Amino acid sequence: MSVTFPLGFRARGIRAGLRNAPVPDLALIINDGPRDCVAGVFTTNRVCAAPVRWSREVVADHKARAVIVNSAVANACTGNDGLADSKREAEYVAALVGCEPHEVVVASTGVIGVRLDMPSILKGAAIAHSSLGKGDVVDESAARAIMTTDTVPKTATVENNGARFGGIAKGAGMLAPQLATMLVFVTTDAVVDAEEFQDALAQACEVTFSRVDSDACMSTNDTVVAMASGASGVTMSKEDLVCALTQLCANLARQLVADAEGSHHDVKVTVRGATTTKAAVAVAREVTRSNLVKTAIAGNDPNWGRILAAVGCVPESVAPFDPDAVDVSVNGIQVCRSGGIGDDRDLVDMSSREVHIDIELHAGEAEAAVWTNDLTHEYVEENSAYTS
Amino acid sequence: MSVTFPLGFRARGIRAGLRNAPVPDLALIINDGPRDCVAGVFTTNRVCAAPVRWSREVVADHKARAVIVNSAVANACTGNDGLADSKREAEYVAALVGCEPHEVVVASTGVIGVRLDMPSILKGAAIAHSSLGKGDVVDESAARAIMTTDTVPKTATVENNGARFGGIAKGAGMLAPQLATMLVFVTTDAVVDAEEFQDALAQACEVTFSRVDSDACMSTNDTVVAMASGASGVTMSKEDLVCALTQLCANLARQLVADAEGSHHDVKVTVRGATTTKAAVAVAREVTRSNLVKTAIAGNDPNWGRILAAVGCVPESVAPFDPDAVDVSVNGIQVCRSGGIGDDRDLVDMSSREVHIDIELHAGEAEAAVWTNDLTHEYVEENSAYTS
Repeated sequence: MSVTFPLGFRARGIRAGLRNAPVPDLALIINDGPRDCVAGVFTTNRVCAAPVRWSREVVADHKARAVIVNSAVANACTGNDGLADSKREAEYVAALVGCEPHEVVVASTGVIGVRLDMPSILKGAAIAHSSLGKGDVVDESAARAIMTTDTVPKTATVENNGARFGGIAKGAGMLAPQLATMLVFVTTDAVVDAEEFQDALAQACEVTFSRVDSDACMSTNDTVVAMASGASGVTMSKEDLVCALTQLCANLARQLVADAEGSHHDVKVTVRGATTTKAAVAVAREVTRSNLVKTAIAGNDPNWGRILAAVGCVPESVAPFDPDAVDVSVNGIQVCRSGGIGDDRDLVDMSSREVHIDIELHAGEAEAAVWTNDLTHEYVEENSAYTS
Repeated sequence: MSVTFPLGFRARGIRAGLRNAPVPDLALIINDGPRDCVAGVFTTNRVCAAPVRWSREVVADHKARAVIVNSAVANACTGNDGLADSKREAEYVAALVGCEPHEVVVASTGVIGVRLDMPSILKGAAIAHSSLGKGDVVDESAARAIMTTDTVPKTATVENNGARFGGIAKGAGMLAPQLATMLVFVTTDAVVDAEEFQDALAQACEVTFSRVDSDACMSTNDTVVAMASGASGVTMSKEDLVCALTQLCANLARQLVADAEGSHHDVKVTVRGATTTKAAVAVAREVTRSNLVKTAIAGNDPNWGRILAAVGCVPESVAPFDPDAVDVSVNGIQVCRSGGIGDDRDLVDMSSREVHIDIELHAGEAEAAVWTNDLTHEYVEENSAYTS
């Protein structure tokens, strides 16, 4: 259950033939109302895909009735032709649904620099539309249709005081800060105020998707879009809205980490004792981006020296702290104390998939956590063996 | 020929028994004068090793007569005990050489968080000192003594208007910006002014070692130290000094790139048409740090989409440019033009070790180049299979 869990939504993923494999590769998510509020958060990469440029404008108007998303091809770096293709997709779906083109969110994921196979996409959109059903719960097909290098579909649901939330996500490589590289579609039947909805989604993304850093590469296509149908009749407070969206997004973000390309470990780097949250995040990110830290973890080595060396890269102006006061624990063992040798590293058990790195800066009260993965042979293989 | 190429220097690397392998692991470089000027550039990592803390003070006085350097253990994150060890090394060598302790540069490289084996080091220093010979050309032993994961020693010499320069370097992983992670020792028999020498070395490092980015991890031990004996009697202009040092450092830096752990390609990323040199360097660095770009190169894939996505991560405030105006060439083939599809990628020949990525921003006149390596299985293996 996911995007059709809330009242007022229909969804379907079908095989449009965009990929060689016999898998779904195109999905529609329709908001049947009665309301049609939309919010969205997009990549900050200055090289952004045509669908992102289109959908940013849709979201700016706060109204949407449908989402069309395809995998296989990102429709990025395709110039004006690519933009025209995104627009054409929106126009076609708008005609199917009975709304305006600028009420249709468009998303794509896949190879960069290749044009969309528009005949297949439009034909697929028609097929998907005709196979939608009210209350259709077979919408794991939508979650599957957006997968590329993902090995499993990612879905989540949340209920909060009578309002329902559902979500699907894709993303297994090219995760990054400033919005993990991925596509996320969220639906809710809560009654929401447009600006509150946008702000609540942004807050949720900030502490979930933006705190996932798999290989420090930002995508051209990052998209998180949420639609609200109001079909439950339940009006939520802003706080509850933020809470529910954050809970949903955290669940999806954790699934993305667990499916990161070729990874053996999910690594949570928590920085405490920072002067500000921003400083804590900066320190955590320096660690999560370190190839030396991530290869050490791949080798089950609690190499605190490499962790400390990464921490030491953060400028004083960004995160003030005394390097001689830093403690580092791995899976609960304080292997580094006051910037030097701590407890015996052989005490650290790294056999589980989840690894916890805890860094205490002793400089303040702020904390933040960033997730990442180890750097493995499989990652190299997946990203060097073929074009994606 | 390297550090004893200029007049006035003796050097020797010997086996002090710090490593398991039967290889040299400790070296002395002695400046017999008549002058004793020293310059140095060190890591900016806030977590810096005891030898770096010691040597920074030595260099601040602009006078040095000797260098003692060991491999195997970095003497980093060893607290006050580690600092005392570095000081002891300096005192011991000072007594051997007949100078003051603060005229002895100390350097170490190897595993972080482990204490030095002082008895072996001091005994080794005495042995090295006793086996120094005037005009001894067998100083490749010094270049070998500083090797850790290096597969070959790195040496270089330069002659400029009657003055000689020699250098040795080590570094094959953990290369980074703001000084590639490595140890470099340079000697010259030119007559130099202390402050000009320091500034010239800093300039040379800025455009050579600081433009090498192998795995974006800064070290705790980065050290570049240069000594001037004045034995040639030749006084050089500041410009010639900068030129000669830059030539020598560029040669050594290029050798470091060629020996990067497990790499298959040496990658030169050149950014042109930037508003400033700083902007050009920022864009180049974003590309050289991208794991997705580097795995693509490992797979001989001229994946311009990933290159462009990396370029797009640089904030507008750091490097202004229009993403739709960017061109990318790989080994001379313009595979991306105006931010979109360019020439056929199958035209790109990536069979050579050296790969050239040329990025044109069309935003100004500045340019800069940063070297890196591809990200391979061997890199993962070397950095995950054992502690270093």
